[in-house]
Order: sequence, then C-alpha cells, then structure tokens
Amino acid sequence: MNAFAPGLPTPQVTSQEKALGRATYAGDLKIAGMLHAKLLRSPHAHARILNVDVSRAIALPGVRAVFTGDDVPQRAWGVKHKQQHVLAREVVRFVGEEIAAVVAIDEDTAEEALDLIRVEYEPLPALIDPSQALEPNAVKVHPGGNLADEIGIVRGDVDSAFAEADIVHEETYTTHSQYPGYMEPMATLATTDGSGKLTVWTATQSVFLARQRLAEALDRPVSTVRVVQPTVGGGFGGKIIEERSSVIAGFLAAATDRPVRLCLSRIDDMLSGAFSVPMKIRLKMGMTRDGRITAKDVSIRADCGAYAGLAPEVMLVTAMRSDNMQRLEHTRSHAQLVYTHTMPRGAFRGFGGTQMAFALNSHLTAMADLAGIDPIELHRQNAIRTGDLSIHGWKIGSCGLPECLNQIEGAIGWTEKRSRPKQRGVLRRGIGMAAAMHVSGNRTMGNWDGSTIVLKVNEDGRVVVLTSEADVGQGSNTMLSQICAHELGVPLSHVSVQTPDTDFTPYCLGSIASRVTINAGKAMIKAAREARETILAAAAEKLGCDAIDLTIEDGVVQSTSNANHFAKLPDICRYHIFRHGGEGIHIKATHDPDTVMMDGDHYGNIAPAYSFAAQAVEVEVDTETGQVRLIESWLSDDCGKAINPLAVHGQSNGAAVQAIGWTLCEELQFEEGRLMNGNLADYTMPTADSVPEMHSSIVESMDPNGPLGAKGASETAILPGAPAIANAVFDAIGVRITDLPITPEKILAAIAAQKEKRDA
Amino acid sequence: MNAFAPGLPTPQVTSQEKALGRATYAGDLKIAGMLHAKLLRSPHAHARILNVDVSRAIALPGVRAVFTGDDVPQRAWGVKHKQQHVLAREVVRFVGEEIAAVVAIDEDTAEEALDLIRVEYEPLPALIDPSQALEPNAVKVHPGGNLADEIGIVRGDVDSAFAEADIVHEETYTTHSQYPGYMEPMATLATTDGSGKLTVWTATQSVFLARQRLAEALDRPVSTVRVVQPTVGGGFGGKIIEERSSVIAGFLAAATDRPVRLCLSRIDDMLSGAFSVPMKIRLKMGMTRDGRITAKDVSIRADCGAYAGLAPEVMLVTAMRSDNMQRLEHTRSHAQLVYTHTMPRGAFRGFGGTQMAFALNSHLTAMADLAGIDPIELHRQNAIRTGDLSIHGWKIGSCGLPECLNQIEGAIGWTEKRSRPKQRGVLRRGIGMAAAMHVSGNRTMGNWDGSTIVLKVNEDGRVVVLTSEADVGQGSNTMLSQICAHELGVPLSHVSVQTPDTDFTPYCLGSIASRVTINAGKAMIKAAREARETILAAAAEKLGCDAIDLTIEDGVVQSTSNANHFAKLPDICRYHIFRHGGEGIHIKATHDPDTVMMDGDHYGNIAPAYSFAAQAVEVEVDTETGQVRLIESWLSDDCGKAINPLAVHGQSNGAAVQAIGWTLCEELQFEEGRLMNGNLADYTMPTADSVPEMHSSIVESMDPNGPLGAKGASETAILPGAPAIANAVFDAIGVRITDLPITPEKILAAIAAQKEKRDA
Repeated sequence: MNAFAPGLPTPQVTSQEKALGRATYAGDLKIAGMLHAKLLRSPHAHARILNVDVSRAIALPGVRAVFTGDDVPQRAWGVKHKQQHVLAREVVRFVGEEIAAVVAIDEDTAEEALDLIRVEYEPLPALIDPSQALEPNAVKVHPGGNLADEIGIVRGDVDSAFAEADIVHEETYTTHSQYPGYMEPMATLATTDGSGKLTVWTATQSVFLARQRLAEALDRPVSTVRVVQPTVGGGFGGKIIEERSSVIAGFLAAATDRPVRLCLSRIDDMLSGAFSVPMKIRLKMGMTRDGRITAKDVSIRADCGAYAGLAPEVMLVTAMRSDNMQRLEHTRSHAQLVYTHTMPRGAFRGFGGTQMAFALNSHLTAMADLAGIDPIELHRQNAIRTGDLSIHGWKIGSCGLPECLNQIEGAIGWTEKRSRPKQRGVLRRGIGMAAAMHVSGNRTMGNWDGSTIVLKVNEDGRVVVLTSEADVGQGSNTMLSQICAHELGVPLSHVSVQTPDTDFTPYCLGSIASRVTINAGKAMIKAAREARETILAAAAEKLGCDAIDLTIEDGVVQSTSNANHFAKLPDICRYHIFRHGGEGIHIKATHDPDTVMMDGDHYGNIAPAYSFAAQAVEVEVDTETGQVRLIESWLSDDCGKAINPLAVHGQSNGAAVQAIGWTLCEELQFEEGRLMNGNLADYTMPTADSVPEMHSSIVESMDPNGPLGAKGASETAILPGAPAIANAVFDAIGVRITDLPITPEKILAAIAAQKEKRDA
Repeated sequence: MNAFAPGLPTPQVTSQEKALGRATYAGDLKIAGMLHAKLLRSPHAHARILNVDVSRAIALPGVRAVFTGDDVPQRAWGVKHKQQHVLAREVVRFVGEEIAAVVAIDEDTAEEALDLIRVEYEPLPALIDPSQALEPNAVKVHPGGNLADEIGIVRGDVDSAFAEADIVHEETYTTHSQYPGYMEPMATLATTDGSGKLTVWTATQSVFLARQRLAEALDRPVSTVRVVQPTVGGGFGGKIIEERSSVIAGFLAAATDRPVRLCLSRIDDMLSGAFSVPMKIRLKMGMTRDGRITAKDVSIRADCGAYAGLAPEVMLVTAMRSDNMQRLEHTRSHAQLVYTHTMPRGAFRGFGGTQMAFALNSHLTAMADLAGIDPIELHRQNAIRTGDLSIHGWKIGSCGLPECLNQIEGAIGWTEKRSRPKQRGVLRRGIGMAAAMHVSGNRTMGNWDGSTIVLKVNEDGRVVVLTSEADVGQGSNTMLSQICAHELGVPLSHVSVQTPDTDFTPYCLGSIASRVTINAGKAMIKAAREARETILAAAAEKLGCDAIDLTIEDGVVQSTSNANHFAKLPDICRYHIFRHGGEGIHIKATHDPDTVMMDGDHYGNIAPAYSFAAQAVEVEVDTETGQVRLIESWLSDDCGKAINPLAVHGQSNGAAVQAIGWTLCEELQFEEGRLMNGNLADYTMPTADSVPEMHSSIVESMDPNGPLGAKGASETAILPGAPAIANAVFDAIGVRITDLPITPEKILAAIAAQKEKRDA
C-alpha cells in the first residue's frame, strides 16, 4: 500500500520547495525591464479630491509614470454593487483608499515620488459608526444611501413558537474585524506582451475570479488577460475577488506597456482592507424546559465599510448558516448591511460563520445554564443528524456533530472539570465549549460549483495535474496528488500539480467555500479513473489480454490472472502515443455537484456536504490583571474522510489559533477611521509561545457525496473558538463578555461591575 | 466572409509583437539570480584530453562553477547511435567540440574564465576527408569504425532495365554543407525549482523532442524536465533533436541548482554544427530515345562528421525520396554514411532532398540534351501523377507537378528564352529548370505522426489554442488560427495560440518534415468542429431550439430557421459553464494520419500527402569574372490548398533564396577541420540586394488527406534551386558544374578547360 494513500498522514508536496526557501511567490518574480509601483492613499475617511498635482513626482528622475483617478477606466467594478474604480475618482471614502500610483525604476524612487504628489482635498464629514448609518440625517457614503444590503428570512411561525417556549433569552453580541494575517502580503507582477495581452502573476485564491475582476475593472475582454498563480502564502478569504492591488498592478502594466511589480508592505496590505465584517447581532431564542429549541429570532447589523464587495454574501451566511446545525422549525432573521467611511470588509475564513457562532454558542450556554442543562447535552439534543433536511433545505448527507461533541467532552474531562473548584488564588479556571457547521462547497456563483481536472500522463508514466484550484498553503495539491496516485496506482512522487494559469489550466472557481477537496477531489477521482481505464485499455492491447484482468500498482501494470502479463507504466504510456491513432494521455474530467442554488427565499441545498466541529477549552483568568490564558483546547472536526490527516490537523490547529487571536488579542485600532496599529507588532496575532499545545481530533463521517467520503476541512475549525473561550471565561468568573475581543480591560470592568452589583 | 479565411492572404498573427521588437526569444528571458555560461571548445579535430586544469578559472571572482567531461553523466546519448556526452569525455572528435563550461555572474566573466582553463591535449591524427574514411588504414573516429550507416535499396531489375535503355548517362555530383543561417543563434535559459524540476526555455522546433533529448542526456525521467518554447527565430532543421547547447544549459542549471543562460554567439553557433550533410552522389540513369526513364542507379557517400545524429535519416531521404517523383520501375541505391573528425551534420530544410535534387535535375537536363528533348518535357513525361503508387509504396493522393512545370514554363517564357542568343558581350545568359518533391509529414518516429490540439473557449467566446507544434517563423500559428477561426465562426483576432510547454500543452512532434499544416491542421479542424458542436448544443439548450438549425458567424450563434433565435458567443460560453453539470469549454482532438512506417526494405506510404515544386531561372554569367547573376526566378509550389498564400509565398521565396545561397555564395571554409569563416561577413549568405525579385506561384492540387486540401509548404521550395541554376549556367556557357557551390573560380576554370578542349 502506498505510504501516502488517502487517509495516511502525508507531508505537503510543496514542503521541500518551501523548506528550501525556493518556492516562488509573486514578489519573488522578476522580468527584464520591470518597474516598481507604489500607491498614494487617502489620509481622509471622506473627502472630495479637488486637485492632484503630480508634476513634481513625474519630474523625479527614475519615475516613469504617475496615474490618478482621471486616468483609469470610467466604468466602475465590483462584486454585487459596481462602485469601485482602479484609483479613486473625485471622492475618497476610506482612509487608505488608493488615490494615485507611481511607477518607477525601483521601489525607493517610487516611494520618494509619493511624497511629491500634492493632493488638494475638501474634507467631508465621515460616517464611521455603523450604528448611525441608517439615521435619517446620516452622511451618505454612496448617493443611494447607506444601506448596502438587506435580508429577511422567515421559516415557520416564530411568534407562536416563542409563545410555546418555557425559557426565552435575548442578548446582543458584537464582533469586530479581523485581519487575515497571511504570511505573504499581497503581491503582483503584471506585464503586457507584444500582442497586447496582459499577464498577471498574483497572490490569489482563484485565477479565474481574478481574471474576471481584472477584465471588468480594466474594461477589457477576459481573453486579453492571463492570470497565473505563483506560490501563495495564505489567503483566508482576503485573496479572492475583492482584492484591489492586483487590479491596480494590471492597470499600471497595461497603461505603461511595461512589466510592473506591486508588492504591498504590511501596512499597505492592512490599509487595503480584506478584513472580516464586524457585526452586531441581537439574538433571541426560545427553549422548552427540557432543552428543545423552539424559536430563534436574529437581527444583524453588519458594516461593510466603504464598498460592499462580498459582504452581502458574508452577511447572508451569518443570518442563516448556523440555523442548519440544529433541528429548528421556527426561525427569523433580519439583517442589514451598511456602508461606513471605513475600509472595505468582506470574505474571511469561516465567511460570516464566526460572527454568528460567537453569538449562538454564547447564547446556548447561557440558556443551558438557565435551564440547568449541560451545554454539551443541549447541543447534542438539538443537533441535526445524518439524513435530515435542514430548515433552509440543506440535505445533511453526513453529520458527525454528536460524535464531535462526545470527543471533546471526553478529551477535556468535561464533567470532572465542570465540577472542580474554580478558584486558585487570584486565578480562576473555567471551561467552555461551542459547536459549529460549515459548507463544503457552495452553489452560489452562477449556478455552478464544479471543478475540472486535466491529467497528462507522460511517457515515463508520471503525471502532471492541471487545475485552477489554488493551493494557498492549505494543502490541496497534496490532497489531489494523493487521490491521483491512489487511483492510478503510481507513487505520490510521480504526480506533480502545475500552477494555475488561466490560459493553460481549466476553468475552476478556486479555493473558496471549503470546496476544493469535495469538488476537485471528485473531479480528480473521475479523471484518474479515466486515465487508468485509458492505460489499461492500451496495456490490454499491447499485452493481448483483457483489460478487466489488469491492475496498476506502484507503476506496474499486471494481470490478476496471468503472471506473465505485465508491463511497466512507461512502456504502456509510450505505446499509447506511438501506434496508429495514438496520442499523449490527456484526460479532462469535470465534477459539478448535484446541489441547488438558493431560491429567492434563500432555500436550497447549496452544498454537496456539510462539515461540523466542536471545541472545548479550559481558560485561566487572572482576576487582578484581567488576563485570559488558554490552558487547554480540544477541537474535533468532522471532515468526512480525512484524506490527509496531517493537513486536517494543521488546518484545525491553525484555525483554532486564528480564533484565539480574534477572541483575545487581535484588535484593529481606529481613530476617526484611521488604522492606528497597522503592523504586526501592534496588531498582536498569537505567537507560538502564546498558545498551549492545540489538540485536534477527526470525526470521519464518510459523506456519501465526498471523494472517498471527504468533506471540506479548512474553515469549520475557526468557528467555535471565540464562543468556547467566552463560555469558559463565564465559567471561570461568572461574567459573560458579549463584545469581542475579550480584553483584560473588559474582564476587569466586568468583574468590577459584578462586584458592584453583588455589593449593592 | 472572414477577411482572413483559409485561402486568403493573412499577415502572421505574430507579426505585431515581432514588428514591435517585443517578441520574447530565449535569449531575452531573465530570471532573478540568473548566471551565464560560456563553453570552451576543442581547437583540435582529434585529440586525447590528458588533463583539464580549471583551478585558475574557478578562482576568478564572479565564476560560480566550471564543469568538464568528468562531471557529466557517463551514459552517452544520441539519436540512433548513442555516442555523445554533455561535455567531451577523454577524446575530442571535432574542432569546436565542447570541453568545459564556465558558469559565472555575467557573460564577460565567463568568457574571461575560459582563457584561464588549461587543457592538455595529445593531438591525434584526424580524418578530415570522407573519401578516406573507409580506407583500410584510416584513422578511426569511433572504436566501431568509420561507417556510421549503410543503406541498400533495390526495386525491379535494374541491370536488365539499363540494357533496355537507349541512352545511359553517368555522372558524379558533389554537394557541400550549408549553415541554416537562422536569425537567432541557439539560446537557452534553464533553471531548477524547489521540487527539483528542470525547466528549460530553448529555441527549439519541438519541445517534446527537446525534453526527450534533455532527459536522455542528463539521465533523468522526462517528467522531471519541462521544456518551453519561446519565440524562435528560425530553425531550418538545426533546432530539432541533435542540438547540444540546450542540453549543456540544462546540465549546468541542474548541476549548479541556479538559473543558467547560455546564448551562443554566431561563431559558437556555427561551431556547434547543425549544418547539412555533404554528399558525393554518383548517378547513373538509363532512358529510352523518347524520354522514358528505364533505370536508375544511385551511389552515395555522405559525411556525418563526428557524430551521426539524424544523418542516417537524412541519407535515407537522399537515397530514395526523389525516386517517388517519377514513374520508375527499376532503381537501385547504395548509400554509405561515414564519420570524419569534423563537426556533426544532420537535419536541414529539405532533409536530404537538396543533395539528390541537385544531382537528379542536373542529370535529367543533361540526358534531355542527349536525347534532344526539352527538359521540362522530359520531367512532364516521367512525372508521377495523382492516384499513382510510387516505386517505394507512396500513395500519391494529389500531384500538381505537371501543372507546376506548365506554370514555370509559361511564366519565364521558357521556349522563347531557350532559343534566344546567349551572348551579350562577355555576358552570357542561360535558363534552367528543376523539379522536386517532398513529404508532408513522415511516419518515422515510433510509428506515430499525429498531432493533438486543445482548444479552450473562454467566457468571452475567444479561443486559446494549446499545441506543442512549433511556430519557428514559418507561420504555423497563423495557419492554425485561420482554420480555428474559420471552423468556429469567430474573428481571427479572437484566436490566440499559446506557447508550447511540455507540462501544459499536449504531446506533439513539432515542426519537422513539413508535417504541421497537414497533421496539426487536421487536428485543428477536428477540435474546432467539436468545439462548435459543443457550443451549438449549449446554445440549442439555452435557446430552446434544435442545434441542427444553428450556425455561428462572426461570434454570433443564430438560427437558420428562426430569426429570433440568436445569442452572442460569450453568452453561450458562459452558459456552458454556469449551469448544472457545466464546465469550461476545453476540447482535445488528435489526428494521426493513416500512413505506414517503412518496412525493413524501406517500403511504405510514410506521409499522408506529398508536395511538389518546379523552378525555372535565368542567369547571366560573366565569362571574364566567372560571376553568376540570377536574372529571374519562377518557382511554382504544389502545396495543396494554400491556407495562407502570403505565408506560402514567403516560404517559397525564402527557400529559393536559401537555395541561391547554397548554390552560389555560401561555402564553409575549413582548414584541417577548422572552420575559417564562422561569421556572417565571411560566410556570405544572400542579402536582399543580391537577389532579383523572386516570383512564386501556387498550384492548389487539393489533397484528399489535407486539411481543407492543404499539404506542407515550407521545404519543397528549397529543392530545385541549385540544379535550376546549374542547368541555367550550363545553358549559358555550355559547361556543367557538378560540384557545388558554383563559384567564379569553378566557372572560369570550366570555361578555360572547355576552351582548351576546343582548342586541342
């Protein structure tokens, strides 16, 4: 058996080049004659651009060109709302918005030239606070007003269901923006060629969505743009379809007809946005005495910043996704997305799930306490099960949620720790848990969620995989290689996945919505099996036997019935070409899952499968300093079959740490819309020594729609972290923080308020 | 109708980037950290390498590595005979053979380091003259002796047929080596990546044959090598599978694990070989009084230089190809290929055809004169015809040779000029003609001559063509684009052909044997028709009508029966993806012609079609200086359907000029095996002002096996030039030069000898 067969822990196929420092990121690329770009950004949250004087900048030796909003295509681009230009035109709407671009012979010169650009602004009143966005006299971010999107979903009879409830609980939760914090800030190299084609190497999660964005923003046909994905150092949602610097780089290359490199510094990258959508969620739920949830009423106000991007989709997820985790009959959601004069926010790992997971799980533990029920038991009791049809029409083909709950319960020693004394001097310990679900795929873009794989089997029997699904560090190339090697019967080292390239690799949507394993994995099985059949047919012809008797193992074709019938794969692959009517083995296979676009009422089975996770944590709160320290974390992820358990654990642990950051230490600091901590010293992401050893376990629920039973495994695990910690903090000190992040200041204030209340 | 439909003169699709100077050749490429290589070459034709001291070279600042034959793989590589190493080991066999390679930070440093390498040679006696190669005591070039290859072919009863002849004529002809003289000397950039894969951008006529060569020479699996073809500035046979500098560059990159650029200077390129095979041909033919050729006896001695390369194949072509041009019944060929201590010779435009065309056409004119028959009439009388099966088993599906003869006869005013006085003072005018045939494709490599095309139709309805057939300047990308646009119903500008790349584009053999138009053209028709059907099926589904009623014209799908049924191509292409079970349009089609490998007796219909050409020229000989000036040239090319007449005329004229160079002014000068004129000042190729306006015309014989009737059109036209000129010189001055090139010295000597004979 193959040492790296699906199911066995497999080092990333990209690990060697990364460990050697030889993986080529967009910023590493150089082209002869390459110029360097730097961007001038607005210091104002809202202002009219009266005049941009670039004369001194353009006069600086080494500067090749300076562009402003006057030079860019007039047509606005965007995801749902067409609102953005390549560079700001007339008005700036957030601090950091790109005003002008300098192209020069090196980065220093370009940087120096930025200081020579004189922009005359007329500062305008800015709308920073989303709670004021819909006030009658609010400053308008866009002429059409500040309501970017609104969603209302009603299922069942919510009011009657509340009336039936024994316990009704209502609370408001507030979540903040998180920076994706990928290792690699955005980088792009763009160039035109002699035929006028624009080629763009950019850090992206989807080359085809990037191509679409570039074509739209630059107002040219998609076929005149080629997007190539070099090695990407993490995306977490920030490198999907809202990313602007790649568009600016493409514009600059086309406008100068020269290769242009635009690498964002960390502060530039942070000013560009790509943060998660902050939300205020009012949650009201009804429950029977014995713990059955009867009704749920959700109200959301989300802030997309100055441009909507993917935020409407994010908010929709917040408004409904977690409803599908439980057997609910009566739910109601009302969600409003508002514009503010702040940086655009949008897609982020978990895609709207973290916000609601925080609210819902905080709420459920509070209600469990009210009913005197163990919160794990409450989750278990209400959990949706395999075979269920959820309230929004999702067909739950597999559900390992109960087993996830069992696993974390046992692993952390839930029952024992719940009853243990909390206090140790000024330190108080507590435990908490949370559960969540996520999609594996999402039929949302134009009624297609498919994936296409092309396999080229060379004359030496080795395989090149052509796909436009993006390995951005999560390990999808390893997963695809494992499946390919397994299905074809070749060693893993004989499979190599080439880089996504819109001119050469097939149309795919890329690494979004945890869709690659389930959709590309299925396409890979199809392609590899077709390649195998092709090879066996050729072998049967060459060996003069029946293909049905043949098998491929470790690169050798052999007969199961006649030991003399065997051939090495290279011989068969050469034979496949070199004969009458021959050709190189070049197999294309597509899988589009049998899912359903949401209807107008947001109903429909949007994903081929759904993933689940649960997490239990123990924290220690220092009641004198307000510091929360994570003692232990157990996360259980139902990802169907874990094709590469090593990668699944990596995703689980990485996601859990990212959740810790969001919950405890990462906080974007703004003053009047200005980001005050745009660097990784002041924006404090968790470091290796600030987290305990993270424990993760896998529930293999074997989804009937998944490749070999697999589902997505890169997003679910970020969802339960924040509420598990919040619940543990409550368990420790008896106060509930409903407003992320859980800072020492908030802890101390809560303890003080609690004491005051007690003393009163 | 499309302005650039097949059959209409179409500017090359690559012309814009070339005219702008923006086409990217291998030598234009730069990679970060790139090093530069230079090669040390043997000054001896034959010597033992006693010692190579690289210590001073390696000590030069900026030098990164120096390699010798001790460092390269021990396994020898080669086409038919495995004789070569990446760098010479132990013995050098020609002046120019690569002894050592320096890799340095720039070209100057590498060049400087070459001078610091001390090589201790033991000079050995060298075999320079091929006529001595098979002498019993000849110096041996290889341990196995100097006979590299030997061919004997007998058809019919040659001796009896000679007995039946009324006229028997015997003569010996000598041909010399020609340098391909491409604009772009060989250039390669090679690099390894973090996974260990070796990527090689190189000027090649075939990326897959280059990959095979690199893998073999570097002793590694083909899948660990990726070959990409940048823009190539001409090949003419010199950039097929014998090319060594790409192998050295690949080795250096792998050995240093750094990007290495190796661009040959013109002298380096000339010293590397890639010249045509010089031959001595003894020709004996029998003819009846009325001009029927009864018997032919051929004896060839060819010189492949130090390594055989493709020369055995070249010699085979010389030995038999032109036999198929006439209705022969009795022929005999005996050919010997010998090694000498000179540079390797091999593939060259016409691939062995020029040598025999010179002999045969000179001979036929001489025999026509003996019989008192017009040579054109003699050709016409003996010409093979459409529907014939040739003496070697070639099925002549189309033959425009008689029409070619008619065209040149009329165009040059043959009859009138034949009877015109020759003399004008010291100047003498004469006319001559010749005819030739060539293959379109050749089933020679592993029983396959197929071609695969992949079409990607984008969401905007534009097309990317993926193929590994090489446009090396001849215009195959334009031909493919024309067919694609025509079959699909889109504008030519909506089709773009991407660069051949072994990891991304399908397996193809490349631009050899005039095979691309006929084989890739057929594959393109198949692919485009399948793409069209795919689009029409999607359109029918979307429009709710029958696909059979639909047509595509200028990018619009419309119903022939209902004017309301129409859609723009982009809408259909988007629909093809964005629907249940959708996918991007990605069509692969292969065409392998129904041809036959030669059997052991060299019998078999090797090509799907055969091209023919005839040429008539008028020359003026200055009897005082011996100068031959071409007055007029008319070349008629039977290329089946001329898909792009502009390109066919370009090929005809270019080939005719290259033939003029070979015949009159290009001559490699050697002294003791040393090339004495390795530059384009002393190796005098024809310049624009040294040739008259070249006239070419096309015979469209509409081959049943060709795409839209087309055959190959890039090689046939070089074949008749030399004998047409030799015949015209004879016509002018009454002496026949049988020994190319026709230099003033030879003319004057011949005139003197003639005078002496007459005076005697």
